[in-house]
Amino acid sequence: VYFLSDYGTADEFVGIVHAVLHGLAPTVAVIDLSHQVPAFDVAAGAAMLVRSGPFLGAGVVLAVVDPGVGTDRAAVALEVPAGGPRWLVGPDNGLLMPLAASLGGVRAAVALDPVHPLGEPAGGRPGRTFDGRDVFAPAAAHLAEGGHAEGLGRPIDVATLQPAPAGAPTGGPGSAPDADGSAIRASVTWIDRFGNVQLAAVPADLSAIGLVPGGTARVTVLPGPGGGGGPGRVVTGRRVRAFGHLAPGEFGLLEDANGQVSLVLDRGSAARSLEIAGRGDGVRIEAEAAGGSTPVGGTGA
Amino acid sequence: VYFLSDYGTADEFVGIVHAVLHGLAPTVAVIDLSHQVPAFDVAAGAAMLVRSGPFLGAGVVLAVVDPGVGTDRAAVALEVPAGGPRWLVGPDNGLLMPLAASLGGVRAAVALDPVHPLGEPAGGRPGRTFDGRDVFAPAAAHLAEGGHAEGLGRPIDVATLQPAPAGAPTGGPGSAPDADGSAIRASVTWIDRFGNVQLAAVPADLSAIGLVPGGTARVTVLPGPGGGGGPGRVVTGRRVRAFGHLAPGEFGLLEDANGQVSLVLDRGSAARSLEIAGRGDGVRIEAEAAGGSTPVGGTGA
Amino acid sequence: VYFLSDYGTADEFVGIVHAVLHGLAPTVAVIDLSHQVPAFDVAAGAAMLVRSGPFLGAGVVLAVVDPGVGTDRAAVALEVPAGGPRWLVGPDNGLLMPLAASLGGVRAAVALDPVHPLGEPAGGRPGRTFDGRDVFAPAAAHLAEGGHAEGLGRPIDVATLQPAPAGAPTGGPGSAPDADGSAIRASVTWIDRFGNVQLAAVPADLSAIGLVPGGTARVTVLPGPGGGGGPGRVVTGRRVRAFGHLAPGEFGLLEDANGQVSLVLDRGSAARSLEIAGRGDGVRIEAEAAGGSTPVGGTGA
Repeated sequence: VYFLSDYGTADEFVGIVHAVLHGLAPTVAVIDLSHQVPAFDVAAGAAMLVRSGPFLGAGVVLAVVDPGVGTDRAAVALEVPAGGPRWLVGPDNGLLMPLAASLGGVRAAVALDPVHPLGEPAGGRPGRTFDGRDVFAPAAAHLAEGGHAEGLGRPIDVATLQPAPAGAPTGGPGSAPDADGSAIRASVTWIDRFGNVQLAAVPADLSAIGLVPGGTARVTVLPGPGGGGGPGRVVTGRRVRAFGHLAPGEFGLLEDANGQVSLVLDRGSAARSLEIAGRGDGVRIEAEAAGGSTPVGGTGA
Repeated sequence: VYFLSDYGTADEFVGIVHAVLHGLAPTVAVIDLSHQVPAFDVAAGAAMLVRSGPFLGAGVVLAVVDPGVGTDRAAVALEVPAGGPRWLVGPDNGLLMPLAASLGGVRAAVALDPVHPLGEPAGGRPGRTFDGRDVFAPAAAHLAEGGHAEGLGRPIDVATLQPAPAGAPTGGPGSAPDADGSAIRASVTWIDRFGNVQLAAVPADLSAIGLVPGGTARVTVLPGPGGGGGPGRVVTGRRVRAFGHLAPGEFGLLEDANGQVSLVLDRGSAARSLEIAGRGDGVRIEAEAAGGSTPVGGTGA
Repeated sequence: VYFLSDYGTADEFVGIVHAVLHGLAPTVAVIDLSHQVPAFDVAAGAAMLVRSGPFLGAGVVLAVVDPGVGTDRAAVALEVPAGGPRWLVGPDNGLLMPLAASLGGVRAAVALDPVHPLGEPAGGRPGRTFDGRDVFAPAAAHLAEGGHAEGLGRPIDVATLQPAPAGAPTGGPGSAPDADGSAIRASVTWIDRFGNVQLAAVPADLSAIGLVPGGTARVTVLPGPGGGGGPGRVVTGRRVRAFGHLAPGEFGLLEDANGQVSLVLDRGSAARSLEIAGRGDGVRIEAEAAGGSTPVGGTGA
C-alpha cells in the first residue's frame, strides 16, 4: 500500500491508519509517500501522486485529501491497467484521476460502502470525519491482500467520477507553456522543499525559443494566484544540466527529475529569493544569449 | 510495537530507536503513532495514546514523553487485559495511565532495570538522557517477541504508579462539560493539524441543552491557560454531521472521529480563526435556534 | 537499509526512494534515521550518521545530502569492516567519511555508474537531479540483498575519496576543547529538537578544569559562525547527571547520550534561552565552585 495524505504528522492520524492496515493485512508493506500535502489541497495531492506514479510497484494506492469527508461524496476504489498499482482508493473528488490517467485510465470503479463489510474497527465508528481510518484503509487492506472489490461496495459508471481538480497535472509531462513572441510563459506546478520552482514546461520548450544548454535567459516573475511578492522581478538564468554547474548565487533552468523544467538557485531557494509563493504563479522566459559554444554540462534537448 | 514520543523528526532519535528495535526483534513490525507530541507535554501524549487505543492490535505500546529521564523516576512495563496491546512501556510519570485505564486497567507492573538484561547496545551506554534507546526499546523488543517481563526488572505494586497528569483524558469519551444555565462550558482537549477544536463534550451534551442536529448555537470563547487571544469572541455555530454540510466560512459543531464534539470551520482552521491556542482553553455553547425541521445531514444524538 | 537525507518530508522524495527500494528488494527492512538534515548541510548529516553509527546493525547505510547532484562528483559505495553495516552508499562529498572512520575505516570503494546496471526505473530517467532515486537506492537495494559491488561500477582508490567536510565530527567522542587558562572553550556540535546544546567536549574535560559533579561553572557564550545573538551572555551552569536534577530555570552541564557534554536547561531550550544559533558557535566554561560535597546525582568522570 502506497499511502499519501494531508494528515500531517503532528497528530496520530497517520499512525492510526497504519495500525488499521496492519491489523487487517499484517503482511502487507505500507510505504508513506508524504503526509504533508497542504491541508485540503486536492490538486497538490494529485500532482504528488502523478510524480510518484512511475516508481510505484504492484499494490494499492491509498490517498486522502478530502475536504468533503462525511458529505455524500463517494468513497471509491478505481481499477487501473496492470503494470504498477492496480487499485487507487480514496475520495471521489478528482484526487486520483490524474494518477489514474497516467497509469492508463480507469477500467472500473467501485463506490465503497460507508460501512465496509470487513467488520467494525474495535472502537466502533463515531463521527464520520475520518474515512481514512474507517473506510479507505479497510478497503485498501482488503484489496492489497488480493481481495475482490465486489464485496466493498457497488460498481459505478466510470463516466460519473469527478474530474481532476483545477490546477492538477493532466497526467504526464508535456503541459505546454504559452507562447509569448520569442518567449514562453509557464506556470508554476510545484515548489519543493529546496525552493526549486518546477514549471509547466519541458526542455524542448526552451530549445524552441532558442535557449540552448549553456545559454542564458531573461526570467520575469509574473503575477499569479500564488500571491507571492515577486511579480516584476527579473533575473538572468542559465540553462544547465545540474545545480552544480551554477556559480554561487546564479539562477538556472534545468531538466528536473520529473522531466520538467525547474527554475533553481545553486544551494539556495529560488522560490524564496524571487518571492514566488506557489502553484499557479508563473514566469516568462526569453532567451537572451546564444550560449552554445560553452555548454556547461549541457546535454539537453 | 506501537511507538509514540516527543522526539520530533529533526534529529535521529526516532531512527535510532527503530534501529535498536530492529536489531533486537527483526521480525516485529513497528508502527509510529506520532513523534510530534509537544516537547515534555505528558498530558498531550497521554491523550494521543487514548485516541489511538481502540485501533491498536496485539503487541506493545512504546511511549516516551519523559522530562524526568535520568532521575529516579521509574521506567515501567504495564500489563493490561487481552484484546489490544498487552504491554505498555515507558516512564512512570502518568503518560501510560489513561491508555491503560481505557484498555481495562493495569493488571501488573514491572520496574525496568536501568541496565536491561539483554546485553549492552554496541555503543555502550553513555549519559542517561536517552532511555528510549537504552531502556524502553530493549524492553519493548523483548516483550514484543513474547518474552517474559520477569527478566526485565522487579514487579511493583500497581497502586504506587504515578497517576495521570493534570489535563489528561480520563480514559474515554464522556468527560462532562460544566452546566451553565441552558448552556454548557466545555474545555478544549485537542487542536488538530486542521485547526479543529475538540471539546470535552459528547453529542448528548448538545442535545441536553436543546441543540439538535441542524440547530445553531451561540459559541463564546472563554479565557483559559492556553493563552489564546480569543476570549470574548462570539460566533454562531451550526450542529452538523460533516464538514461538508457547512457553508463557506460557517462554524460547525460536529461529532468527530473520537465520538467527541469538535468546533470546526469548513476548509479552514477554527482554532486560528477564533484564536484558541490550546488544551485547557474553553468555549461556552448555548443553543439559539430550534433548527430541527431541516437537519442538514444530521443523525446525531 | 538505514536511510538518511536532507529531503524533508513535505515532498514525495523519501516516499519514492522507499518505493524504489521496495521494488528492487521487497524483503529488506528500511529504517529512516532522519530526513530533516538541514538542506545541503553535509557536515550536519555526517554528524548525525556518526551519532547513529553504534546502534546500526548489519546492512547498508543510504545517505543523501548532495548539493553536487548531477555534477561530476562521484556516487560511491564504501565497504567498511564487519560488525555493523557493511556498505555506505551516497555521494562522494565527505558525507560518509566520519561514519566510515568510526566503523573502522574504508576498506574498498566503488564509483557507482551513473546508469545503474539493474534496469531502468519504470519511468525512465529524466534530469539528473534525484540520484537518491536513480543511483543510490538501486545500489543500496542490490547490496542489501547481498549482491556484489562489482556490477555497480568500478573500484576506485580509497585515497582519492573526498575528505570529511569542515565542521564534521572526527569519528568519535573526544574532540578536545581548547584550553583557556583554567577554563575550556568548546564549540557547539549539535542543537537538538529540545534545544540541548551538545559541545565538543567530554566529561573528563570538565573534570580537568576542576568542575566535578555537583559543582557549578561560569558559562560564557562566544561568537561563532552560527550567528546567534548570544555572544557575551553569561550564565551559571551546574554539572549534573540528568535533566531532572536541575531546578526550574537552572542551566546544566551533563553527559549526554553520545558521551559528549551538553549544555541544557530543565524542560526548556538552552539554545533558545542563550540565543545560540547553531553548530560552530561556542561557549567558554570555567569552574566557579568546588561543589563536590553534594554531588547531585553525579556519577561522572
